[in-house]
Amino acid sequence: MSDLVIIGGGGAGLTAALKAKAYNGDANITIISDDTLSYSPCSLPFVISGEIESFDKISHGIEEICKQSDISCVIDEAVSIDTKKKLVKTKNGKEFSYTSLVLATGASPIIPPIPGADLDGVYPLQKIGDAKRILEKAKKSKSAVVIGGGAIGAEAAASLRNRRLEVTLVELLPNILATPFDPDFSAMVEDKLRENGITLVLGKKAEKILGGNSVEAVLVGGKKIPADLVVFGVGMKPNTELAQKAGIETCNGIKTDEWMQTNIEGIYAAGDCAFTHCLVTGEPTLSQLGTSAIRQGTAAGTNAVGGYATIEGVLNSMSLRIFDLEIGRTGLTEGHARERDIETVTGHATAKTKADYFPGAKDIHVKLIFDASNHKIIGGQIVGYAGVAEKIDLLAFAICMHAEINDLAKLKYGYTPPLTPEHNVIALAAENASRKLDRIKKVRKKKF
Amino acid sequence: MSDLVIIGGGGAGLTAALKAKAYNGDANITIISDDTLSYSPCSLPFVISGEIESFDKISHGIEEICKQSDISCVIDEAVSIDTKKKLVKTKNGKEFSYTSLVLATGASPIIPPIPGADLDGVYPLQKIGDAKRILEKAKKSKSAVVIGGGAIGAEAAASLRNRRLEVTLVELLPNILATPFDPDFSAMVEDKLRENGITLVLGKKAEKILGGNSVEAVLVGGKKIPADLVVFGVGMKPNTELAQKAGIETCNGIKTDEWMQTNIEGIYAAGDCAFTHCLVTGEPTLSQLGTSAIRQGTAAGTNAVGGYATIEGVLNSMSLRIFDLEIGRTGLTEGHARERDIETVTGHATAKTKADYFPGAKDIHVKLIFDASNHKIIGGQIVGYAGVAEKIDLLAFAICMHAEINDLAKLKYGYTPPLTPEHNVIALAAENASRKLDRIKKVRKKKF
Repeated sequence: MSDLVIIGGGGAGLTAALKAKAYNGDANITIISDDTLSYSPCSLPFVISGEIESFDKISHGIEEICKQSDISCVIDEAVSIDTKKKLVKTKNGKEFSYTSLVLATGASPIIPPIPGADLDGVYPLQKIGDAKRILEKAKKSKSAVVIGGGAIGAEAAASLRNRRLEVTLVELLPNILATPFDPDFSAMVEDKLRENGITLVLGKKAEKILGGNSVEAVLVGGKKIPADLVVFGVGMKPNTELAQKAGIETCNGIKTDEWMQTNIEGIYAAGDCAFTHCLVTGEPTLSQLGTSAIRQGTAAGTNAVGGYATIEGVLNSMSLRIFDLEIGRTGLTEGHARERDIETVTGHATAKTKADYFPGAKDIHVKLIFDASNHKIIGGQIVGYAGVAEKIDLLAFAICMHAEINDLAKLKYGYTPPLTPEHNVIALAAENASRKLDRIKKVRKKKF
Repeated sequence: MSDLVIIGGGGAGLTAALKAKAYNGDANITIISDDTLSYSPCSLPFVISGEIESFDKISHGIEEICKQSDISCVIDEAVSIDTKKKLVKTKNGKEFSYTSLVLATGASPIIPPIPGADLDGVYPLQKIGDAKRILEKAKKSKSAVVIGGGAIGAEAAASLRNRRLEVTLVELLPNILATPFDPDFSAMVEDKLRENGITLVLGKKAEKILGGNSVEAVLVGGKKIPADLVVFGVGMKPNTELAQKAGIETCNGIKTDEWMQTNIEGIYAAGDCAFTHCLVTGEPTLSQLGTSAIRQGTAAGTNAVGGYATIEGVLNSMSLRIFDLEIGRTGLTEGHARERDIETVTGHATAKTKADYFPGAKDIHVKLIFDASNHKIIGGQIVGYAGVAEKIDLLAFAICMHAEINDLAKLKYGYTPPLTPEHNVIALAAENASRKLDRIKKVRKKKF
């Protein structure tokens, strides 16, 4: 009998276990993990690229971590939950009864139904095992095709290019990173990929993966692209089967409330499997980011042992580094706002990463997105060569604090030549939005 | 007859002129500058250090800048203001009548009354001429003593050390950077200076500067420190004589209101000469930072030609880079709070600049200072190896948005291994403050 059983040993599950133990040292906690290793999936592209020297650097034995915190760890797979009897059964025939349960079952890579997707040399990139296989194959390969231009696809393409492979990135939509970014910002990342020798095939479908035993080429728009290696970066589907079978409410993910509790009392969900909500619109949304997994795991674990922790929703703040380019985003894009009939005012600015006369000063581009009805910031995108992640943190904070155009235009930024320029790019972008708003007001006045 | 006369062509004066012109293109604007060059004083240490290759890179002819914006520029020195006749007289005997006037007379370096301060090879570091003299002398020198451990002193010491001089920094107080930082954070900068071979003599007074025509040594605590070059970084005194003679109210600076207007209608002041107020406490304060000069110049210039722009006060956000160490601060220190009987709760955290397994991850230390009575952030200090300036911008923004401990603990930060770690150091510091507050509450409960 455990006070708390956690299914899944990824970021959300392990965080839930550790935070539960930290909150309530007396709680008897069992974690059921089908993986013996704990690691951050975000780190995998950088082992493939060679920037991190080995997989040992990024992974730790999950049993060891649990032992240090007096948490029971069972390497096994949960196969069913009896929510009446409060019992979890595993593949190895074991049973675990619980008072509280946290589902941190994660997500699985989406493998599109393309003929040849089962050939040798075709892999998704989600787990450490995938990354190991990709790296082994990459070492013996001359060319690679990455299918899918989301964050994982873009990072995978850059990683393989770092290993000097000929890399083609295929994306069905007209732009890469089409969900997190607007096309103007995606285009800057596309330029960076091309500059570094990656071929982009946009707006086209990978029709077929060709080869004997092992992949040899990918057919895209009737054209054969040679490939010794294919990586799927198409997205991830929440693992909800276990929850569904147990009668826990799911849609495209396990439904949760602000406490990360499911529709069944005492059963929580966290991480890539959990459906949460958007902080700006309140709409249900999937997050599938490491930071969300940690926050949700913290809340689920704390609440599951008698604590009180809420999640106000997610902004899906994300930063990436593609070659030497830093890119980041938070909140809604212009596209998201348009889909929801939210009228926006945007502010654009380009400035330097340090004083323009200081050696090494490079460009940084910012777009701020404000709700035209109340002038509050609802999103932002940044592409540049330094400080992007920190600036995205500031914008996310601004959204949480309900900041308006003027609040950002009056930003009390610092200035020091080797670190930051005289004019802050966020303040400049807010001033740009402010001037646009003035023009809108004038036009309305004239019309009247 | 000018609509607007501006006395001073530094950051505040030139900004006032350009912003006035931008706001009101018809305004007839004259700027009286005793310097022919426009430059950022913050850049001077980096030309001395050799990081910026020449003074040409950082300076522009002020007459040229004015010409481009249809502003009259007079290279001369204002010697008196007749506020009744609205007339400025100059050293060269010219007279300029005005409708509005902006005083941007700057500040002068404080030269402490030390015997020998007038020897050759002893310079302040404020103007481009000072920096040129220091650089020329440094090229022929083996040793230097910097007197004063404020921002300018610390940067000057690092710059000269970069030129391979034997450098000693002498500070009267027990710590360098004693006004902007608390001793725990100053100590980290002191360690960095020592690591790089600078000798620190703290808590001691430079008693005498010794030499024939040229400086040879500095006597500190009865001990001779050899010096071919001495730099004063003791601070700056606002240039208020002109204003005082004209009957404009001054204290340690020209008194201004939220519009940067002095006690006399139509006369504004901005930049290093202007006394402004602290955004947190509302107290009158000197800022003397480049960013304040720009903001105040913007407000003064805009208001002087019929616009409406206010300054809510300053936080004195500041970032510096000392060798490879980035340091920053905003708002009140613990020391400032103590002097004002503000009870504080602080939050401390140390984290990494990127994921700890990513090559090149280094430490970053944060201290957040909250008002214990309402949990609002009133200040912050950061020392680390990346992203410090941007994080200080976030803290300054948090102060302006009246953010509380919890708002910062719930920061929706991003995570990507090469740029930012899994746990954000600001959020960790806020959590630390939150736990301290819980302990304070428990202790109070027990006492009762």
